[in-house]
Amino acid sequence: MMQIPSLSDIRDAHARIKPYIHRTPVMSSKQINNIFGAEIYFKCENFQKVGAFKFRGATNAVIQLTEEERRRGVVTHSSGNHAAALTLAAASLGVKAYIVMPENAPAVKKNAVADYGAEITFCTPTQQSREETTAAIIEKRGAVLIHPYDNHNIICGQGTAALELLEDKPDLDIIIAPIGGGGLMSGTVTAAKGISHRISVFGAEPLNANDAWKSFVSGELVPSVNPQTVADGLLTSLSERTFNIIRSSVDNIFTVTEESIIDSMLLIWERMKIIVEPSSATTLAVIRENQEIFKGKKTGLIISGGNVDFRKLPFSQLS
Amino acid sequence: MMQIPSLSDIRDAHARIKPYIHRTPVMSSKQINNIFGAEIYFKCENFQKVGAFKFRGATNAVIQLTEEERRRGVVTHSSGNHAAALTLAAASLGVKAYIVMPENAPAVKKNAVADYGAEITFCTPTQQSREETTAAIIEKRGAVLIHPYDNHNIICGQGTAALELLEDKPDLDIIIAPIGGGGLMSGTVTAAKGISHRISVFGAEPLNANDAWKSFVSGELVPSVNPQTVADGLLTSLSERTFNIIRSSVDNIFTVTEESIIDSMLLIWERMKIIVEPSSATTLAVIRENQEIFKGKKTGLIISGGNVDFRKLPFSQLS
Repeated sequence: MMQIPSLSDIRDAHARIKPYIHRTPVMSSKQINNIFGAEIYFKCENFQKVGAFKFRGATNAVIQLTEEERRRGVVTHSSGNHAAALTLAAASLGVKAYIVMPENAPAVKKNAVADYGAEITFCTPTQQSREETTAAIIEKRGAVLIHPYDNHNIICGQGTAALELLEDKPDLDIIIAPIGGGGLMSGTVTAAKGISHRISVFGAEPLNANDAWKSFVSGELVPSVNPQTVADGLLTSLSERTFNIIRSSVDNIFTVTEESIIDSMLLIWERMKIIVEPSSATTLAVIRENQEIFKGKKTGLIISGGNVDFRKLPFSQLS
Repeated sequence: MMQIPSLSDIRDAHARIKPYIHRTPVMSSKQINNIFGAEIYFKCENFQKVGAFKFRGATNAVIQLTEEERRRGVVTHSSGNHAAALTLAAASLGVKAYIVMPENAPAVKKNAVADYGAEITFCTPTQQSREETTAAIIEKRGAVLIHPYDNHNIICGQGTAALELLEDKPDLDIIIAPIGGGGLMSGTVTAAKGISHRISVFGAEPLNANDAWKSFVSGELVPSVNPQTVADGLLTSLSERTFNIIRSSVDNIFTVTEESIIDSMLLIWERMKIIVEPSSATTLAVIRENQEIFKGKKTGLIISGGNVDFRKLPFSQLS
């Protein structure tokens, strides 16, 4: 029986992780508001530790390990923000982190995780190799697997961003969060609907990685097959756990084009002078593609992170 | 007889422009502090209106025009931040702005200035053509020339950034500002030394555009000849006015290499997730190249702006 997260779980998570996380700012831009005739509030998790909301969930998961589990350490397979977040959260609490990464991961990501103090094990870049390598570490070290999103404590930690957003802006009409594996979306909708059913909660997903949208409209979990999108944080598919939460509580999922994601990211960089990653820009892209829905409304966007490879920016793809 | 700016002039400017400008935040990064063993505070004028400190000086200049001068309008020749700043400052006060731009200026800059409502006159891209075209507009329209830095009111406006920085962080040991034409540097040193002679004030200049450094060490005004640097806001040379202020009050000028500017810019983007232009990164580059001087000290950096062409970033030049 899977545990269904509640608002009070998220409040508990917030009390637990508060000493370790940054209280990130809520920003806005008069120019962007003018463009869309809307009031838009950006919850800036790009300023969170490791540059992404993932540090919230990882901290909430590690902090709840038993003394004995802490001694054994934690393990995950990821080449992205979750690996860095889990490593730093573990290090902050004196826990060893084992990270399984594909051997072809970019050097910049390998270095980031190594710098935070993880023991990295490289595997061949297939799902089977990742899982086998992870299983071997669990077998040998007794390390506790912390899944990036199919995990109750992770979901509750991610929901604390929306909790803070609604503390700062209690009168939002709408909240939009990006959907990858669905951990952030599940936590966000649980927090927002728990506080008020009056708040509409929407998911933002790349059209080119639209497994959540397909699952949402068909009522059945449909995984992505080899998705290609600039929003590299949103390539993963929902799990049964996140799908159930999202299907039962999210009001709608909007898919957005690659051009719209890149254009929205450029708009944020140019007008707000802050660095957000493509995955985050999907939320503004939803407004860009559906302006009538948001006119005159107060909308909060969960800006999920700001980890970008500056040597490979997508802006040259714009016309 | 040239007017020498004083702290009280800058305080007056601040009172005058306060309703029109953003109070920009002072940010810091634990990671960057750890790298240099220093306490570094970033005064973020990249978040100022038009994305640069220039809006401070332009507002202070326009606001002090007589009723009759306001009717005639203002004029300047510039393709950069000063043109946008003067145009927006003028528009906020119902004053017409005439901007002379070289016909080969990038479309993005032409559009920005046009969007703010300037009447643009294009000229051939030579100093002579700029000055003749400007003179013709003054002749025909009676417009008032607002020079980007060789102007008392501009200098006093630019000094308000340091004033705010020292309100927020009164115990700084050192302040560093970039030097282009010297307006920001002149205002900064006047504010800082006026508040306390205990504060050291340094200039940051690209080695490839080191006219201020040459002038400072030789004691004679030495203009730049065709300087080439990634810090495109620092190509201009000092005027007699700014040279006199800088020579008499600034403690030292440090030149920095192109590699160091780009590397410092990347460090700020990566660790702080904020967008700063290369000219601003010269200040951190001074610390990077002279770490012993700043160890254990509290240093404030004037982050001059965040206007960057994202299609032409310099990071690929890094090894």
